[in-house]
Amino acid sequence: MKHLQEITLSSQKIYEGRILNLRVDQVLLPNGKQSSREVVEFSEAVTIVAVTPEQKVLLVNQYRYPVAEILLEAPAGKKDPGESPESCARRELQEETGYTAGTLQKICEFYTTPGFTNELMHVFLARDLTPGQQKPDEDEFLQVTEVDLQEALDMIYHGQIRDGKTIAGLLAAFNLLQKNNFAE
Amino acid sequence: MKHLQEITLSSQKIYEGRILNLRVDQVLLPNGKQSSREVVEFSEAVTIVAVTPEQKVLLVNQYRYPVAEILLEAPAGKKDPGESPESCARRELQEETGYTAGTLQKICEFYTTPGFTNELMHVFLARDLTPGQQKPDEDEFLQVTEVDLQEALDMIYHGQIRDGKTIAGLLAAFNLLQKNNFAE
Repeated sequence: MKHLQEITLSSQKIYEGRILNLRVDQVLLPNGKQSSREVVEFSEAVTIVAVTPEQKVLLVNQYRYPVAEILLEAPAGKKDPGESPESCARRELQEETGYTAGTLQKICEFYTTPGFTNELMHVFLARDLTPGQQKPDEDEFLQVTEVDLQEALDMIYHGQIRDGKTIAGLLAAFNLLQKNNFAE
Repeated sequence: MKHLQEITLSSQKIYEGRILNLRVDQVLLPNGKQSSREVVEFSEAVTIVAVTPEQKVLLVNQYRYPVAEILLEAPAGKKDPGESPESCARRELQEETGYTAGTLQKICEFYTTPGFTNELMHVFLARDLTPGQQKPDEDEFLQVTEVDLQEALDMIYHGQIRDGKTIAGLLAAFNLLQKNNFAE
């Protein structure tokens, strides 16, 4: 499918910031015409679907400034340079909820919105949880809550969970757990 | 949960572009300290999970410049100003695949990555499909394919579908269709 590819002709840095960079590239399209592509450069990140033995899932309420809303989300965070996705998942789960995971399983990965950014999200299912002390980042304010997994799924369809990585993660985890139950 | 909120102190436009704008705001945090927030302003968008009577789903192969990969995705696109999400879903499905939907049902909505952008994605399940002529945008190059719905789900766990809106949409549609089947 090489005929779908676009080729970079030139690249201009617009902004280098705290959590993201912006560049605008001129590209050669498959039909020989030219166009511009706006690209937000962002780090890789992780989302953790942490499920208790009682089939409850750990979620966090967090104010999201870009949308000016408090969203109910799975614990998540940006990967530090050199950090593995798995180490990052363990660290973020502990920082945001206090819990450590006895079992951590990668279930899928995805680009959050590949039309304009390279942000890559690694999704983990965490089980065998042990409670501990929450340590959020200095400028991060969170409220942890436990929601019944089946209820969390209903909240997706009722517009009460409106975060993409959380919806993808919850459904991917649920579907996998269901399949494993059938297989056992 | 007002204690989680952040208040805008000042706002600086960095870039106004073709598909996105970037601004950097100074904010007052819940603990009284200040921080900066980088915000990518983007339009609302739609994703369409189009399922045939044979339980196949219409997907498109598309080169995504920001990630330099051809991704397998559900048909999707940006909402025009004043256009309803439903009209946009009908238009995008027809432009990208040629199909028109006899039945269109909104199943969920989500922010694609609310840590740095306000992009809001409306997800539709399309059924009763009638084939027609594809009309992609001038700078859009797509290859349509039909994949068995169950196979598409497996492709999520095998890393062959790596687009967030497609993963969320496919799983949300599958879960809903399964529930409806049990209820019937």
